[in-house]
Amino acid sequence: MIQIVDSANFSTKRSIENGTKEQQEAVREILAKVKAEGDAALRFYTEKFDRVALEEFRVTEAEWAEAEGLVSREVAEALREAADNIRDYHQRQVRQSWFTTGPSGTMLGQLVRPLKRVGLYVPGGTAAYPSSVLMNAIPAKIAGVPEIVITTPPGRDGKVNPAILVAAKIAGVTEIYKVGGAQAIAALTYGTEQIEAVDKIMGPGNIFVALAKREVFGLVSIDMVAGPSEIVVLADDTAEPRYVAADLLSQAEHDRFASAVLVTPSRKLAEAVAAEVERQVALLPRREIAEASLRNHGAICLVKDLQEGFAVVNRLAPEHLELLIENPIEQLGLVENAGAIFLGSYSSEPVGDYFAGTNHVIPTNGTARFSSPLSVDDFVKKSSVVYYSKEDLRNNGKKIMAIAEQEGLSAHARAIGERLADLDKLEQKKERD
Amino acid sequence: MIQIVDSANFSTKRSIENGTKEQQEAVREILAKVKAEGDAALRFYTEKFDRVALEEFRVTEAEWAEAEGLVSREVAEALREAADNIRDYHQRQVRQSWFTTGPSGTMLGQLVRPLKRVGLYVPGGTAAYPSSVLMNAIPAKIAGVPEIVITTPPGRDGKVNPAILVAAKIAGVTEIYKVGGAQAIAALTYGTEQIEAVDKIMGPGNIFVALAKREVFGLVSIDMVAGPSEIVVLADDTAEPRYVAADLLSQAEHDRFASAVLVTPSRKLAEAVAAEVERQVALLPRREIAEASLRNHGAICLVKDLQEGFAVVNRLAPEHLELLIENPIEQLGLVENAGAIFLGSYSSEPVGDYFAGTNHVIPTNGTARFSSPLSVDDFVKKSSVVYYSKEDLRNNGKKIMAIAEQEGLSAHARAIGERLADLDKLEQKKERD
Repeated sequence: MIQIVDSANFSTKRSIENGTKEQQEAVREILAKVKAEGDAALRFYTEKFDRVALEEFRVTEAEWAEAEGLVSREVAEALREAADNIRDYHQRQVRQSWFTTGPSGTMLGQLVRPLKRVGLYVPGGTAAYPSSVLMNAIPAKIAGVPEIVITTPPGRDGKVNPAILVAAKIAGVTEIYKVGGAQAIAALTYGTEQIEAVDKIMGPGNIFVALAKREVFGLVSIDMVAGPSEIVVLADDTAEPRYVAADLLSQAEHDRFASAVLVTPSRKLAEAVAAEVERQVALLPRREIAEASLRNHGAICLVKDLQEGFAVVNRLAPEHLELLIENPIEQLGLVENAGAIFLGSYSSEPVGDYFAGTNHVIPTNGTARFSSPLSVDDFVKKSSVVYYSKEDLRNNGKKIMAIAEQEGLSAHARAIGERLADLDKLEQKKERD
Repeated sequence: MIQIVDSANFSTKRSIENGTKEQQEAVREILAKVKAEGDAALRFYTEKFDRVALEEFRVTEAEWAEAEGLVSREVAEALREAADNIRDYHQRQVRQSWFTTGPSGTMLGQLVRPLKRVGLYVPGGTAAYPSSVLMNAIPAKIAGVPEIVITTPPGRDGKVNPAILVAAKIAGVTEIYKVGGAQAIAALTYGTEQIEAVDKIMGPGNIFVALAKREVFGLVSIDMVAGPSEIVVLADDTAEPRYVAADLLSQAEHDRFASAVLVTPSRKLAEAVAAEVERQVALLPRREIAEASLRNHGAICLVKDLQEGFAVVNRLAPEHLELLIENPIEQLGLVENAGAIFLGSYSSEPVGDYFAGTNHVIPTNGTARFSSPLSVDDFVKKSSVVYYSKEDLRNNGKKIMAIAEQEGLSAHARAIGERLADLDKLEQKKERD
């Protein structure tokens, strides 16, 4: 089911999902209707798509409380410990505002401050991912964002998955609204009677959610347009085939479009992993999904040596990269493009997905070439600060005017000139006195 | 020409420019043609839009050398000194990779590394802005980006403005190509025979350039979708009306859509500034543009007191904010949203536009609520690194599996389980021995 191919025949396509014309039109219509009609439009779409009639969208205190009893103590405890680890890691990303002072009284600086209100979209459907709530909300909390809200489609019973509520409580989320789809993105962007607009929208979703985020980009900040999840395992003869196969499968079970690729110079390993994949896939409840994913987006790519292996990895720029090779730490410098890098036999990707503390929201689709895992940086904004002294203006004003005039912007030059003229007069007066 | 309005009647609309359907279609056609035909398509569009037939797009060494002689020594010297200041400021934004080590052998970290290749679009037309070359290229250089390229539309003579070339040399730009419009964005995204694709595209442009950037967002990183430039001056009775008027005009001269707003509790200042604007605008070569801008997008907004003034400022979230008030430093904490903040009488905006060292690429259109001036951060990518120890996996494996099972992702749990089983066997063997 997973093909062994030579590197010469191994290619990956990269594309962005822009949806069909019909989907784009549908999304624009939803955005416009929510912008114009607010909650009435949200009610309309929630009844149409989620098949439930809601008056109030906000999750009540009673529902929060009820959720606590519906999640096993073991899972809640594991989530709490994971949250501690995520806090510890992300705390190290926090940056301070800074100032620098010049000898003539000039001060320049950079203010680093949190966004005021952010919204996380949590998909509904069969699977609920409490870990994603932690991964999105905790960095925001650590950045100092005072208002962190979630929107998520309600079930047919008008409820939200209890594990989502428990994770939200652990992460410090302050409000949850039962709204899904493009209409949720519209509510977060424009605001409605019950849902206040936010500054930034995070979180994955179906094609309608993705298109809506793309459409409102610029009015609010959006995290990224996430593609299907990916893993590349770069392994040599020292790797345990059972581990490699299990890690590839853990990616493949996500969905039919997920991609799992082993890159190795060892034909022996390649064959052993292929056999292990066959054996292990049969044990999986999500077997059908994993098989489809491996068939269409999986591969074992045989390379000449590890050097070529790293070249393939850097071309792919994968979301997740595992180095199951001898001395992985020594080789870390050869990785140019990868969102998250897992080193050695015991750093299986789920360690990072759930628990170690690093973020699991990571750039997909080759965008690790230029973007980064979600971090505290995504929840702050910076402002430049300029306090220019009289003396520095006197010393440098003419130079500033020279550049402005070169650019044909005389009013810029005049703004400096008005001040220089006054300073000259002051100077002359001082000399006269 | 500039209206005095009460804060109750003062509103600002915020919108994003999505262009007309025809413009969108035109841009998609250009992108597709360049993707398919490469340089041939670039030649076609350069002849069509720039009216010049070019074989080679890259600026030659001879052209670089020639440019040096065409820019005044005074301007070149001022640009060099500005570049030094910009370097000094941005150097302070540089971040290091970091690692943390746990007591059981686990190491977590974050690699911070430069992008490999970035492209700056420099608009053509009447005005050339060498300062923008410095502001975009220097942070990239300081981040460590090895390849910084410029594309810019050629004049009818097939040449590039010499001031652009001089600034590019000062900033450390390595390649310049004579291509403009949406076709330049296409070349930077997909690559052609002569122009290699980049990881990120910066720089402002006309509506076609803006739409093209929006369209390729996701395949490459883009800096922002820049709107018209804005200034808000918050001033009290201590402000010099001549300075306020000159600073408003320096914004208004940019283009007809630029916005210049004075917010003040002082009717006396309001009237004096309005009169000064009338007087000074008559002195400007770009008078017509400034008048149109002030008429349509300028205002003097009268507020009850400075507290209300700050509320208006924070709602506007302006690109540039000047505080011409008593003790501006003491009031800095009241500014929630502004891209760049200029404090006191001698910190006129052109000081930051050209010389002080802060960046002049700043979020417009209210996006300072969630985004930041261009910085070294825009030219790095981060990768998470996870080295998880055997002991930590033994201690925490079951918790990781509990969360995975809760999420219905059994293969994730299995990936951990395969390892835990081996560790258990090892343990038992040790006990037996």
